[in-house]
Amino acid sequence: MIEAYRQLVKKIQGYEEAIGLMHWDLRTGAPRKAASGRSEVIGMLSGEMFQLQTSDQMRDFIQHLLSTRDKLSQIDVRAVEESERIYKQSKKIPQDLFEKYVTLTAEAESIWEEAKQKHDWEQFAPYLSQIVAFNKQFVELWGYDEHPYDALLDMFEPGMTVAQLNPIFEQLRVETIAILNKINDVNHSLNRSIRKKKIDKEAQMAFSTYMLEQMGYDFDAGRLDYSAHPFATGLNLGDVRITTNVIEDDFTFALFSSIHEGGHAIYEQNISSDLMGTPLCTGTSMGIHESQSRLWENQIGRSRAFWKKYWPIMQSQFPEAFGSEDEEIFYRALNEVKPSLIRIEADELTYNLHILIRYEIEKALIEGSISVDELPRVWDEKYEAYLGVRPSHVGEGVLQDVHWSGGAFGYFPSYTLGNMYASQFISAMYKQIPELDKHIENGELHVITSWLNENIHQYGKLKSPVELIQDVTGEPLNPTYFIQYLHNKYNDIYGV
Amino acid sequence: MIEAYRQLVKKIQGYEEAIGLMHWDLRTGAPRKAASGRSEVIGMLSGEMFQLQTSDQMRDFIQHLLSTRDKLSQIDVRAVEESERIYKQSKKIPQDLFEKYVTLTAEAESIWEEAKQKHDWEQFAPYLSQIVAFNKQFVELWGYDEHPYDALLDMFEPGMTVAQLNPIFEQLRVETIAILNKINDVNHSLNRSIRKKKIDKEAQMAFSTYMLEQMGYDFDAGRLDYSAHPFATGLNLGDVRITTNVIEDDFTFALFSSIHEGGHAIYEQNISSDLMGTPLCTGTSMGIHESQSRLWENQIGRSRAFWKKYWPIMQSQFPEAFGSEDEEIFYRALNEVKPSLIRIEADELTYNLHILIRYEIEKALIEGSISVDELPRVWDEKYEAYLGVRPSHVGEGVLQDVHWSGGAFGYFPSYTLGNMYASQFISAMYKQIPELDKHIENGELHVITSWLNENIHQYGKLKSPVELIQDVTGEPLNPTYFIQYLHNKYNDIYGV
Repeated sequence: MIEAYRQLVKKIQGYEEAIGLMHWDLRTGAPRKAASGRSEVIGMLSGEMFQLQTSDQMRDFIQHLLSTRDKLSQIDVRAVEESERIYKQSKKIPQDLFEKYVTLTAEAESIWEEAKQKHDWEQFAPYLSQIVAFNKQFVELWGYDEHPYDALLDMFEPGMTVAQLNPIFEQLRVETIAILNKINDVNHSLNRSIRKKKIDKEAQMAFSTYMLEQMGYDFDAGRLDYSAHPFATGLNLGDVRITTNVIEDDFTFALFSSIHEGGHAIYEQNISSDLMGTPLCTGTSMGIHESQSRLWENQIGRSRAFWKKYWPIMQSQFPEAFGSEDEEIFYRALNEVKPSLIRIEADELTYNLHILIRYEIEKALIEGSISVDELPRVWDEKYEAYLGVRPSHVGEGVLQDVHWSGGAFGYFPSYTLGNMYASQFISAMYKQIPELDKHIENGELHVITSWLNENIHQYGKLKSPVELIQDVTGEPLNPTYFIQYLHNKYNDIYGV
Repeated sequence: MIEAYRQLVKKIQGYEEAIGLMHWDLRTGAPRKAASGRSEVIGMLSGEMFQLQTSDQMRDFIQHLLSTRDKLSQIDVRAVEESERIYKQSKKIPQDLFEKYVTLTAEAESIWEEAKQKHDWEQFAPYLSQIVAFNKQFVELWGYDEHPYDALLDMFEPGMTVAQLNPIFEQLRVETIAILNKINDVNHSLNRSIRKKKIDKEAQMAFSTYMLEQMGYDFDAGRLDYSAHPFATGLNLGDVRITTNVIEDDFTFALFSSIHEGGHAIYEQNISSDLMGTPLCTGTSMGIHESQSRLWENQIGRSRAFWKKYWPIMQSQFPEAFGSEDEEIFYRALNEVKPSLIRIEADELTYNLHILIRYEIEKALIEGSISVDELPRVWDEKYEAYLGVRPSHVGEGVLQDVHWSGGAFGYFPSYTLGNMYASQFISAMYKQIPELDKHIENGELHVITSWLNENIHQYGKLKSPVELIQDVTGEPLNPTYFIQYLHNKYNDIYGV
């Protein structure tokens, strides 16, 4: 029976791979008129996949195999458990309810796009109200122990709860605002103009490619393309693709988004081939995934040690832009702290305040302590309170992110969880490799990649995030590593 | 019931679209390590599609709908008939036999590739023997009226038979050799060096893009990419892609392969949207498809009228290569006749002799009048007799084409049928548009495209090739148009 189960999940993975390629293609280079027909095919194949995941055959496999789990390998047990999680999650929502929700969110995404552009809250609000209502219904159907938002958190970060996250995020909020206030008090001037040098597109892409190679991204098992919004997508272990976009007068966009997506992709390229064809052959949670991208993007990619190696190379690659510039000014410009309205443009410190605001709002919406109508006011007040800035319209405020229009409640915390996991991982890495800074200064980035492969990547979903962080660092998620990292970095730069 | 049938065939088309995209991706830019996993997914989805095409549900739809055909639209009747053709073709081969054949041809293709490179006939011969034996078995299972090869011809050119093709091909062979002999007798010197100018890759691609736009290829419903071997693939009506390859010191390769594939693609882009989601939404036969590519590539793309418009543009685009060159020399170089060993490098006249040789050999193999062991000898003798050239090894002889290793017997005639259809179509076009040469000289190629859309493209598989050629030209396939075209062209160039 285990053989028949393996065949079934392999087929499901096959559908996922085909759908993944179609999505990649639509976002990178499919001709305009391809979209409507292609979307129907994606819908059809998704439906076939859903039917397999929720079939009576799957139910019987799960029941039988879990009742004889002692005879199964660890991988098989975990795979069946993951199939069970997906089965239950899907089966608990009545099909007609789910189909209505899919139609609603598909429509809401295009409404959101228009509303954002026109700064028109009233246009989007009724859709968001409905989406929130659906999610409140879903969490009741899925069930939860303590807080209704737990059911949503669990989808992206298995095992995570409001009870666990509240004190962690609160501690981070207090510490971040304290650092931010100190930086604001210091009379500092950073020269950001060094980030605004004009560099041509192809040259930027070539440098991104070089940097990805340095990180150990395998171009025989992936490729780098342009897309409006950067992303990484794992189609199979030998095909994990990334995209970026180039802004000619802001090289940091292509460079750091490439490094970021490269971090995601290196994770997926290095999952053990033993997990191939099972539902375990992907990242174990969105938070852990995000830890891999953010570790590379920020904690390595914006470090002094890193630029000791790569600044001279960058100078020689772009002599006109950087030939006569100063390394210290460059380093500081990459790490400048400046509260702003837009999450995706935020610096490493204030970024987490953007996330905390969304977390607090989502939680309140799902528990019903605020209504959608109150959102613009609540949003603006929190931005004022935490970041000291206030949107002049909803386009740069509550309507800035796509997530809610697609119903992705519970996703935002992953970003800040990623930052915290990353610091905790790096701290363990430094303990085991005391010479790590030397290696980075020498451009021996493979030392990092190998450590991540060995300790994190290979396991895919075989270890839960809770198990993984415990196994790798000897303790559960602990925000003090990230907080300490922030203190150290901004003490170094701003003397605070 | 017709609604349920339509849903089923739409689903089948969806699988085809997904599989098509995966093939396109593998051949254009998928990373090396993607292939093995991706091939498994293609296999899995092909299996699903096959199951739908041969399902009891499909059988019941076909039976019921054809028994009440009076109540159906013409499109529905044709669609169900096409589904029946596919159903019967698939059902007549026992599944275990078919699976063995698929495994055999998959292996044979890579063996062929190696054998061709090593000029090693003995390595490939046993595989080819088996493939021929399978095909002999298949034609008996499929059935045929007169000649066993008819069953294979019918797969690519519905309705075509050996009885019909023999005299047509024989007439063409005699006339072609007569023209060739006359050309050989003339003391002529053509300057081919003009084809060997070095032009850089991007500039060649840009010119191909320009030319495709001139032809009316819709880049909002397609794209042009690099691949080792040029091809066109219709994924849906809004997404028909083409590829080419660039040889820096032979601009004719990229240019004429782009025009050729553009001809295929324009056909598929302009099928009526009424046929979308049915099995009729593609070219009606390989021969008609090939008529569209060859009409553009040869009869338009190598004509005097065409270069009257585009030679000055080409000169201004590539002043270094062509600025001081002569239009007449250029035109003649594009049309030079020179018997050679390799089919895909052959000129417009001798190309058909390459095809006739393959046709004669395939027919003889399937009827059993020659054996695989005799092939190298038979091949070389026919090349000597028809073309006056003799391969020095099997790599440039009997092993040159991929087709047989994949079991595609019956395909080769399509190429020459395409040439003949094209001439017959063009002749009808001239009758209806007497000013056609003027339009071409003015670069008003849309006149041609519109005529093809109107008379051919829109119908997809709604008309059989037999019906189509009759409707468009008022008579069945008639080789004299093509023969007359060849006479005119080479009389003009060589005075023969």
